[in-house]
Amino acid sequence: MKIAILGFGVVGSGAFEVLKNHGLTVKKVLDIRSHPELGNILTSNFDDILNDKEIGVVAEAIGGLEPAHTFVVKALKAGKHVVSSNKHLICQYYEELHTLARENGVTIRFTSAVGGGIPWLYNLKRAVRCDDVSKVMGIMNGTTNFILDNMISYGRDFDEVLKEAQALGYAEANPSADIDGLDVARKAAISSSIAFNTIIKEENVSILSMRNVTKADIDFIKAMGKTLRYMGFGIKTKDAISCFVEPVVLPGDALEANVNKNFNLISLFGKSVGRLSFYGQGAGKYPTGNALAQDVCDIVNGDYKLCCDFNEALVDNSLVARKYYIRTSASLDGDFESAIRKDGMSFVITKPMAVTRLHSLIKSITVKDPAVFCAGIEE
Amino acid sequence: MKIAILGFGVVGSGAFEVLKNHGLTVKKVLDIRSHPELGNILTSNFDDILNDKEIGVVAEAIGGLEPAHTFVVKALKAGKHVVSSNKHLICQYYEELHTLARENGVTIRFTSAVGGGIPWLYNLKRAVRCDDVSKVMGIMNGTTNFILDNMISYGRDFDEVLKEAQALGYAEANPSADIDGLDVARKAAISSSIAFNTIIKEENVSILSMRNVTKADIDFIKAMGKTLRYMGFGIKTKDAISCFVEPVVLPGDALEANVNKNFNLISLFGKSVGRLSFYGQGAGKYPTGNALAQDVCDIVNGDYKLCCDFNEALVDNSLVARKYYIRTSASLDGDFESAIRKDGMSFVITKPMAVTRLHSLIKSITVKDPAVFCAGIEE
Repeated sequence: MKIAILGFGVVGSGAFEVLKNHGLTVKKVLDIRSHPELGNILTSNFDDILNDKEIGVVAEAIGGLEPAHTFVVKALKAGKHVVSSNKHLICQYYEELHTLARENGVTIRFTSAVGGGIPWLYNLKRAVRCDDVSKVMGIMNGTTNFILDNMISYGRDFDEVLKEAQALGYAEANPSADIDGLDVARKAAISSSIAFNTIIKEENVSILSMRNVTKADIDFIKAMGKTLRYMGFGIKTKDAISCFVEPVVLPGDALEANVNKNFNLISLFGKSVGRLSFYGQGAGKYPTGNALAQDVCDIVNGDYKLCCDFNEALVDNSLVARKYYIRTSASLDGDFESAIRKDGMSFVITKPMAVTRLHSLIKSITVKDPAVFCAGIEE
Repeated sequence: MKIAILGFGVVGSGAFEVLKNHGLTVKKVLDIRSHPELGNILTSNFDDILNDKEIGVVAEAIGGLEPAHTFVVKALKAGKHVVSSNKHLICQYYEELHTLARENGVTIRFTSAVGGGIPWLYNLKRAVRCDDVSKVMGIMNGTTNFILDNMISYGRDFDEVLKEAQALGYAEANPSADIDGLDVARKAAISSSIAFNTIIKEENVSILSMRNVTKADIDFIKAMGKTLRYMGFGIKTKDAISCFVEPVVLPGDALEANVNKNFNLISLFGKSVGRLSFYGQGAGKYPTGNALAQDVCDIVNGDYKLCCDFNEALVDNSLVARKYYIRTSASLDGDFESAIRKDGMSFVITKPMAVTRLHSLIKSITVKDPAVFCAGIEE
């Protein structure tokens, strides 16, 4: 079975090298840019791949929705297996792509779409087969972890660390997808879909941004003996699934508290296996390229029976409740667990509140205080 | 393909339940004890399993060398796949069992033999396929981690925590295999064998016991801003493999520093994927039973092509050097990085020393001071 790679950017070129170094030859690479080093492997015409009967697996590393979606659909319909590192594509077309794969007797794999080099989704699928998973959660975005770790470990300011992250290539010029949570939301949605055999859409995920975190928040949280991370959650309750993204106040001895720099750590909670956590590089040419290459290897070796079925799910973020930390200059009324006023700011710990109710409260506070910061408290 | 389980103790009964709860029926269970709840599934005669053509996979959870070895060899020769949770068996007969599996066109899997419920060996095999792994290391024993965590977090004494671990069923009446390192040595040997496509034997692993650790050591290490864990290592150098077990002084922000209670965390370092770490319950009925059941599922589903080849390896523990912490009442001469004398004890930090040279030095100190404690320093 021959391999094609779509897109010779960071991830595609990383996967190409990993496959080549381990004896797997890539027959075609699709890219509209010039790559003389690829010789006649390179094509700018997708039909060269689609019509090549020898090519049995297509690894998509273009990113974004189009033309990735068109190419992936055509590949599946042509009976080719598909591997993708594209979380946007997978999240948006989860049901369509899985249905097409099933109808055409092929598989779709996307381990590298969540957690970069970490074989998280692969292991989650394997766990679900023999366990009842009740919760997934994790640090799924390296950029925001890099920012928080630097603020916490070195007392630096948000803006300064964000600029460094941009200079290092960790963060985009427009960092919103990272710091406002869309990137984590997609990863939490995909993880929850697999964990709970369902389809969670991007718009089902309730998000608190982390862009307003300040040194005052870090100092307050440190004084509690706690630390702060930005995390995605998927939780199965009796009647529904909750899926949300929040800054999280964690105990200082939590495993996540020692996830430093731009590393990721993602966990599942199974009825029989208990907690399993997976740690590694959540992005980067070689780690993500490795994860893409591993999915290709599974298919080439015939180890690809792990599939996922799915049912309709009710998503209801009102069914999970937790305490929250809120820091705002606005005046807050309510029956809180604790509230202190310092330097013109209120620092509040709420009683347990449903995710939906808290997220609505923060939206209403934002009107008065656009700089409000809030984090869930993980006991 | 039907399933048989050998041994209905903690792990075997856990795997039985996990398989049953996920739609996989076990046709036969071998145990010499009475288990009325099993009805006619139970047999005390291995031939009932060996001669049953429907049984294609045998899950061994007896433990120890005999009769497990005899049964596993017969099963492989009869063309049955074998899954085992038995680190002693796998470590002792690694080459024979793999050779027999290959000769008979079947597979041998033993994910649950190292790290309990953690899919460590499974992922290590998968990583090796597409990466060059240079190092494996980890907290591979829950009992010793429980002891160290309690000593560090609550200032308790070794003997008191050991007694609690025994009462909780974490530690054996004779705790030597845990605290003197044999358990970790076998797990490090098996992990290194897979990581480096070779065969590392138990006797190749150089071991420092952790049984002499005292409150004075913990206090000294804490004052350095560090923490202490008991870990196994496998390291590939240019010319050979090093494999050893030591107490390890770690930075306070190391991921291992927040591995608490009886949890395990095991890591690999790959050229392309970087560091990957796997965390979970390293023992217990349901976690280990789950891992055993997962290996069975892979085989039943046909997802079992991941195999391992191996070559002869030179094991040489003189090729890895690191700094060491030594605490002893004996007088020590040498050119150390630092040495202080306090309460009749020397607290020494050595310059980088080869593992073999340090382990020899500790043996010679032990003659004068049987209570000497030593730990490698992981920067």
